Amino acid sequence: MSSSTALLTDHYELTMLASALRDGTAHRECTFEVFTRRLPNGRRYGVAGGIGRLLDAVENFRFGDAEIAQLAEHGVVDERTLEWLRDYRFSGQIDGYPEGELFFPGSPLLTVRGTFAEAVVLETVVLSILNHDSAIAAAAARMVSAANGRRIIEMGSRRTHEESAVSAARIAYLAGFTATSNLEAGRRYGIPTAGTAAHAFTLLHDDERSAFESQIAALGTGTTLLVDTYDISRGIDLAVEVAGTGLGAVRIDSGDVGVLARQAREQLDSLGASNTRVVVSGDLDEYAIASLRAEPVDGYGVGTSLVTGSGAPTAEMVYKLVEVEGRPVAKRSSHKESRGGRKAAIRRYKDTGTAVEEVVHRVGAEPELGPHDRRLQIPLIRDGKRVEGLPTLEQDRERLRRALVTLPWEGLKLSNGEPAIPTVFHGA
Amino acid sequence: MSSSTALLTDHYELTMLASALRDGTAHRECTFEVFTRRLPNGRRYGVAGGIGRLLDAVENFRFGDAEIAQLAEHGVVDERTLEWLRDYRFSGQIDGYPEGELFFPGSPLLTVRGTFAEAVVLETVVLSILNHDSAIAAAAARMVSAANGRRIIEMGSRRTHEESAVSAARIAYLAGFTATSNLEAGRRYGIPTAGTAAHAFTLLHDDERSAFESQIAALGTGTTLLVDTYDISRGIDLAVEVAGTGLGAVRIDSGDVGVLARQAREQLDSLGASNTRVVVSGDLDEYAIASLRAEPVDGYGVGTSLVTGSGAPTAEMVYKLVEVEGRPVAKRSSHKESRGGRKAAIRRYKDTGTAVEEVVHRVGAEPELGPHDRRLQIPLIRDGKRVEGLPTLEQDRERLRRALVTLPWEGLKLSNGEPAIPTVFHGA
Repeated sequence: MSSSTALLTDHYELTMLASALRDGTAHRECTFEVFTRRLPNGRRYGVAGGIGRLLDAVENFRFGDAEIAQLAEHGVVDERTLEWLRDYRFSGQIDGYPEGELFFPGSPLLTVRGTFAEAVVLETVVLSILNHDSAIAAAAARMVSAANGRRIIEMGSRRTHEESAVSAARIAYLAGFTATSNLEAGRRYGIPTAGTAAHAFTLLHDDERSAFESQIAALGTGTTLLVDTYDISRGIDLAVEVAGTGLGAVRIDSGDVGVLARQAREQLDSLGASNTRVVVSGDLDEYAIASLRAEPVDGYGVGTSLVTGSGAPTAEMVYKLVEVEGRPVAKRSSHKESRGGRKAAIRRYKDTGTAVEEVVHRVGAEPELGPHDRRLQIPLIRDGKRVEGLPTLEQDRERLRRALVTLPWEGLKLSNGEPAIPTVFHGA
Repeated sequence: MSSSTALLTDHYELTMLASALRDGTAHRECTFEVFTRRLPNGRRYGVAGGIGRLLDAVENFRFGDAEIAQLAEHGVVDERTLEWLRDYRFSGQIDGYPEGELFFPGSPLLTVRGTFAEAVVLETVVLSILNHDSAIAAAAARMVSAANGRRIIEMGSRRTHEESAVSAARIAYLAGFTATSNLEAGRRYGIPTAGTAAHAFTLLHDDERSAFESQIAALGTGTTLLVDTYDISRGIDLAVEVAGTGLGAVRIDSGDVGVLARQAREQLDSLGASNTRVVVSGDLDEYAIASLRAEPVDGYGVGTSLVTGSGAPTAEMVYKLVEVEGRPVAKRSSHKESRGGRKAAIRRYKDTGTAVEEVVHRVGAEPELGPHDRRLQIPLIRDGKRVEGLPTLEQDRERLRRALVTLPWEGLKLSNGEPAIPTVFHGA
């Protein structure tokens, strides 16, 4: 796999480039804007995800010999375009919402400025990253909300593309997950990984006792024993018998986990293992997690629903040309109309700190800022170079945690509804 | 990005390995089986996708210095396990359904045999690939069925993770799509790519005429002009005026595409451009494609619904330990029970060639084969080496095309229902 991101690109980006180089319009100064027209499935908020990965992708968007050879061989574009691509390096400006920031319909999540040529070719990879990562981020944030402070571990790698899995693990951590099962995410992003054993480990052994003894010998009594391979109640008895009352946790991966968690808690307490935690997993989503709030559950393992965006696997963002040489432009033929002109946004807050509205405005026509209001875009790339001192993943994690607290209380409801705050187009 | 796939793995695979190396069970001969308990969303069939990628991933599953250092630094496993991983190379046997083969609930899609140690560590990456690619394959096959012979182009890269996009494009081609927009898929898998221009290209220019003239000059009159940036009817007039009646195609990306396609056809015919094709795109899924069957549409562009599996983004397959040292094993605590023992499958056919049932049987207890019946698994890896002469992507594409023809007619319905043929467990 090449480390260049240049071919993670739709064919038409390059044919447009070829035509525009030929007629001279390629060098017109343009502004592209990334936004979404709606939040999926009646969600109350979106969460900006993928900005860090996007900056890496822009840096690695270079056409080396392998990429040029491929385009030449298949006649995708002409010689002149190949020459131009060989020297390609984005030299423009990118501003955007920092990762972990909330967004709403119409929020200008990312603004890319440069010549048409240098900005148009980034469309596909920019959207791939933002659409995937923001979809996961919204689902993850809802799950963390539902878990209400309890530990929540991401373990969905097996249910999605092996590379999406790594990105999803990163985003789950951004959203407040405690750890991930994905080792490559640990390596690539330095986030904590966790895991102990699956049913196969118990089945491998002659009996459950040998499996538990082996795991304790290797991982210590602080480990988590999976107790539902045969009979949960006998599994818990055996787990405490083998590990002692200092056993870290038991995990239940199937059945009616609410009822089973309560029974497990009572049984553990009756065995004197009152500090042994109860961890549940198995097809949990934000609704299932919320429904377990009154149960004695100490931690959740979440898989499929996280990595598939819990019903909304894409954030449906678009990358639209909004300005050419200072002139606003917009498609006009249908309901898919968009607003022309380079825009930015502020978020208004009450004195109490509660968010009130998202104000999207033309750059140069910013409305007056109230004492608690905030500008939402930050500079990400200047003259092709990543701005120094951009927030870290840990800082973005904290940003999201704080941002969710500012939503009006309906904004954290899991049910379908309107966005938590309205988007107002200032001067529109 | 490292080309090793070794860390695309759940943490617990390696802690299980560590425990099993310590107690000696790691060397027990095991059989793991990949199957799904159900088809998502009332689908009638599944399509095996990702086998080719899976074989690459197994070959590249090696722990180099970078991988070992990461595991050591974070204390994921002990020294002895690190030593074992350093020498890791799968040396066992893998059999499976070839790519493009249909499957049903309980079909033994993949059988991995080897020591527990060497087989368990492959679980995560094997499932990631099969779950993603088979999810896309089923959606893609339904779309190709719905398109009923018309051209259909994959253009969903921007709506999914940038690496999923490449795999989705490959699978779309497997399923019968004509081409993809994804250039990296063209490079990596040698599949045809296509694309012309987006609305941004028209908006970049001073007017639609300049944009069309530029595109024709660069790409020739055989190109596809996007006619819905401003007014579709005027766009079509202009397209034919600029390109002449030899124009390749017009594309409509928004609005009620059925009505618009009919109007476009009439207008093109009245202008003498009766060979100019009408291509539609914009939020199409298999249902929308089917609903356009009576309309004069020559080609479809499909994005979001393809890359997100059209409502089923994962195939929900599992990788289960079914046999240890020749002894069948199975979890017993819940509805998630599975059948122990190494299995294979045959598909029974009527004399007419119509499929009748999927028969899953224990290996060594194969039922009698009728004259038209077929064994479904093929050897993929022998003693750690990829079997020579495995089918190519083109052959697998043809396999799927032929397999769909064998389904009973209800099997091709898009509506929810039972699997097209029942799965029978022989001797169960």
